[in-house]
This record gives sequence, C-alpha cells and structure tokens, in this order.
Amino acid sequence: MAPAEFPLALTLGDPAGIGPDVTLLAYAARSQETIPPFVLLGNEAVLAQRADALGLSVPIATVSSAAEALSVFDQALPLLPIDVPETVTAGRPTMAAMDAVKHSIETAVALVQRWEARAVVTNPVSKAHLYEAGFAFPGHTEYLAALAGDGGETPLLPVMMLVAGPFKVVPTTIHIPLKDVPRTLTQDLLRATLEITDRDLRRFFGYEQPRLAVSGLNPHAGEDGSLGREELEIIAPVIEAARNAGLDVSGPYPADTLFHTAARERYDAAICMYHDQALVPFKTLAFEEGVNVTLGLPFVRTSPDHGTAFDIAGSGAANPRSLIEALRLAEAMSESAARETVS
Amino acid sequence: MAPAEFPLALTLGDPAGIGPDVTLLAYAARSQETIPPFVLLGNEAVLAQRADALGLSVPIATVSSAAEALSVFDQALPLLPIDVPETVTAGRPTMAAMDAVKHSIETAVALVQRWEARAVVTNPVSKAHLYEAGFAFPGHTEYLAALAGDGGETPLLPVMMLVAGPFKVVPTTIHIPLKDVPRTLTQDLLRATLEITDRDLRRFFGYEQPRLAVSGLNPHAGEDGSLGREELEIIAPVIEAARNAGLDVSGPYPADTLFHTAARERYDAAICMYHDQALVPFKTLAFEEGVNVTLGLPFVRTSPDHGTAFDIAGSGAANPRSLIEALRLAEAMSESAARETVS
Repeated sequence: MAPAEFPLALTLGDPAGIGPDVTLLAYAARSQETIPPFVLLGNEAVLAQRADALGLSVPIATVSSAAEALSVFDQALPLLPIDVPETVTAGRPTMAAMDAVKHSIETAVALVQRWEARAVVTNPVSKAHLYEAGFAFPGHTEYLAALAGDGGETPLLPVMMLVAGPFKVVPTTIHIPLKDVPRTLTQDLLRATLEITDRDLRRFFGYEQPRLAVSGLNPHAGEDGSLGREELEIIAPVIEAARNAGLDVSGPYPADTLFHTAARERYDAAICMYHDQALVPFKTLAFEEGVNVTLGLPFVRTSPDHGTAFDIAGSGAANPRSLIEALRLAEAMSESAARETVS
Repeated sequence: MAPAEFPLALTLGDPAGIGPDVTLLAYAARSQETIPPFVLLGNEAVLAQRADALGLSVPIATVSSAAEALSVFDQALPLLPIDVPETVTAGRPTMAAMDAVKHSIETAVALVQRWEARAVVTNPVSKAHLYEAGFAFPGHTEYLAALAGDGGETPLLPVMMLVAGPFKVVPTTIHIPLKDVPRTLTQDLLRATLEITDRDLRRFFGYEQPRLAVSGLNPHAGEDGSLGREELEIIAPVIEAARNAGLDVSGPYPADTLFHTAARERYDAAICMYHDQALVPFKTLAFEEGVNVTLGLPFVRTSPDHGTAFDIAGSGAANPRSLIEALRLAEAMSESAARETVS
C-alpha cells in the first residue's frame, strides 16, 4: 500500500488558538490551491463554532477511520472526534482543554504508526498552558519524540528544521534560555544534529549529498578565539570529523555572513547554534510561508511556523499560508520517504 | 562657518586590507555617483601602489590641511600624509603598520575636534593585529570614544548602529563572547543605549520622536519567564521607565518577529540585545550597502560595514558600495547635527 493512499493526520492544537481558524481556511482554499487530503483530530463543535465566527461555510464530516477521510475529503472536512470537556471560547485558553490537546497529538502519532496516516501535521499549542497542566516535555517536538521512541535507553533526538522553499535552517539548541546555550552546545549534540540533518535531507527531501553550512556561536565566529572559544573547541572539530566521515559540511561561518541572497545559494541547510540565530534570518525572509519540520523521528512531522495567536483567534485575521505549506511539505516528504517504522 | 565647508576625515584603516581599494574605487566613482568631499589620512605610496594593482588611474594630491582638500577634491584624491614605516603588501598585514593605523584615527578625531573636518569615516582595521600590537581597546569604536572623551570620570558610551536606508539596528552588547552576554546586559547599559539612540536619532537623523522597538534576549522573548527571565527582570522594567520618561519605546518582542517587511515599518530602530541578533537580520537584508554608525560620540562617525578582507585586497574584488554609503551618511548626519563639542 503506497503512502499516497493515506491522508495526513492533522492535530487541532490549542482549541482556543488559531489552529481551528487556519484549518478551516486551508480546507476552504482547496478550490484555488492544492491541499493534500488530511484528517483532523479535532472536535466538531469547536470547528462549527469557529466557522460561524469566521463567516465560513465549511461542511464537516465525522469519520470513524483515516481511510474514510480520503473518500470524503472532496466534499467535507473529515474529522476524527476528540472530546473537549467544556465550551471553548476563541482566544480564551483553558487548562480543561489540555487533555484534548494531548489526545489529539497521541492519536495522530498512533495513526501514522499504524500506517493509517502518512505523516503528522500539528497545529500550534501553548507551551505555557501545557506546562501549567503538568505537561512533562519542553515542547511539542520532544513529546512527539517520546511517543515515537521505543522506550529504549537511547531516546530519539528530534531536530527542528525550518523550511521555506529551498531555504532551510536548523537550530542545534532550541527552546532554552540564551544563558544556557553555551553549556548545552556539546560536540555530541552538534555531531548528532549534523548526522540526522544529513540523513533526513536524503531520506525525506531527495538530496544525494546535502550541503550543510555551520554557523559559529560567537560574533564573527569567535574571530580566531578572541571573541569566544567554542568555535575552536567544539564546532570546528565536529565539522572536521563529519567531513572525514563523508558529509558535505563547511564552517564555522560568522552567522551574519550566512543569510544574504548569494550566501544562501552555497548550502542546502544552515546549521545554527541557537534558536534566534536560525529563526531570526528565517522569519526575516519567510514570515508567512515558513514550515517547521521535525527531523530525527521515524515518521514525517511538519507544522505551521507560528504560535497559537490567541489574540486573533476567531477574528478572521489568521493566515492559513503556513499550514497550507506544512500540509504540502508533509505530503512531499512522505512521498520521498521510505517508511522506516511500524512500531 | 557651516559644516558644509569642511571635508569628511577618512582614515586609511589597515593598509594591507581593502581600505585603500575601496577608497580609490569610491573616489573613482565620483563621475557617476555623489561622493561628498573627504580628506584621506593615509599614505601616498600605499595608495599609488594599490591603484596600480587595481588598474585605476587616480590622481592623488598631498595637502597640508583639510581646508585645502575641499579645493582639490574635484581634481585629485586629497591626502594628508601618515607615515607608514615599511613597504605595505596588499593582503599581508604587519605589526609595523599598526602605529600608522592608530595615527590615522587620532588625526581624524583631531581634525573633527578642531572643526577642520565635519565627521570621521573609518576604513576597517584588524582587531586581532591591533591587539597583538598592544592596542588596549576592544575595537575601533571604543578607541574613538576614548579619544573623544574629556578624560573625566564618566567615559562616553559608544553605541553601534547599523543603517541601511530606513532600516536601523542597534546591538546593546557587541563584541563579546555569547556566554558573556547575559551578565553584560544590565539595566544601566540598556537604559543608556535607549537614551543615546533616542537622542542621536533626533540630533543626527532629524526624527522628532524616534520609535524604538526592543527585542528580548531569549527565544520567544522568554515566553513569560519559561525560557529565561531577563525580559522580566531587566528589559521590561527599562522599557517601562523609558516610556515614562517620554521615549517611544516598545517591547520586548521575540527577535524572530521583528524583521520581516511589515514589522520593520513599525519602528525607526530595533534595539537588540547582542551582536548576531542585530547583525544577522541586518546583513541578511543589506549585505553590501550597510553603514556602521557610532552614536554617543560628540561628533559623527560612520564606517563601511565590512572588515579588512585581506584575502581580496589588491585583487579588484572589493566593493566600494558600503564606503560610498558611509561617506554619504556621514555628510547627511553632520548636516542635521548641531555641533556639540570643540573639545
């Protein structure tokens, strides 16, 4: 059975955020745009109410399996039901909804693991609210890695990659305070990040030999040690070893020389040392259409590159562009992939 | 005597770098482009040799005063001589040239302090070589601040601003290792940076009420404290106090939301917390034409936004665009300025 015969599994995200908005808007755009078939792990009442708020007439079909979603997708937005325990108000997140948020993610992973969905696409959640509800993971991505792992001693290392057409960036450390970046940036972490990025650019994007450009940590990539020594002690040795292992890796480059038009043509993915070093140039160039991809998992996962945006939920101001691109990229990646797990 | 009756004072920078190249190329471009009159604090032999290497025919006029430079500028590149103790080879920096590098900077500052030049424009120097020669300042900018100060107890705080047309960014901490950023970022430093930027955008750029947008330090501006507390403990209180003092300051914003096209229209300058947070978006958008401005000095100082580029000195590959923009901006800023010091 080819992956094309499965829909994508789309989570609802925080029901009070713009996940329902962009899902409805993406589905409604299917007459003008190619929207790959998906099944929403969500709640019909939330969706119907949000469609009303947005003035959208979107037929919704409750289905009992992902397979059924494929056959109804042309006529109605297919939805596998997730209970939401109380009334959801756009823009007003509640702790009571956090179980539904988690259940939606777990169901999406289960579908892809059972070969009933081809990839996972996630709508945004609020980390602050998940933490408050006792969520034990730093974020969405780490939760997916835990769900995808086999529970063995070596946990999966999820690698975040932002994609906008040919432009791809990978932050090596991610959602941690800036002051923790230098001690978190180890040779092991950087080596694994390079290896996973190289492997998954081949596996999911079809590159034969991806070109990875690595940034420095410090201003001017440390300027020969006078502005910091991590380039000499951590980054350069890992690059050297990766090159010896056959990867096409170069750097460390001063981060401020890595992202102008001519520089971006010299690599397939920029490997950055921390969140803003990667996300600032990425969102400067691709604010609306960026897609967040998680590498290092046994399945394809993408998500729109924006947050819950509670302040505009239900207002009509949310832009579905990033979700549409996330759906398309998940489809393209899963076509290129050999499915590697049924665990 | 109006500032327009003075030339700009242009330093040579490291004579083995591309300073001589871009100076010659900028002067040679004056038939196609507006190049404000300048006097070069440099060495005729170095310049003549570099012109040969570049295949440029540029007449050079040794002058004995800045005033004389104005009258010859249409016919020849005016040069106030600085001795260079030995033969200079393009691309081969020597310690022996460091005295000339410093002397050129000191002369430029003396000219502007004596009202013989309207502003200082500096060609790039190599910090590593200056350090090796016993230079006691972290960089060019701090050296200028020391030269410009009155030697009193409160040293001047030089504030670096990058300018490309309407786009301006200010890094609050600058040339330090990333690991030192969190402890260097204090309320005092941020407050002074906001005050100087506000004052000098009025003084040198003609804004009546400049709009300053402040970034966070951490990913997502700390996400309410879950990804770092500097936003809550340092940045937000300083913004609040500055607003109460009448400044138009907002933030802290997640740095990755601050630089796309629509975001840049909402402020006149982005105040960032560290080097790459400011320089990465700046050079992503303005790689060739950016100008480095030093605020907080009693005179105008600009410089091209690139380094010595020893690897291309003498080759013809250097681009004078940034120096040309630096000369023009120095002229415009000094026209807008009330001269505040004759010290």
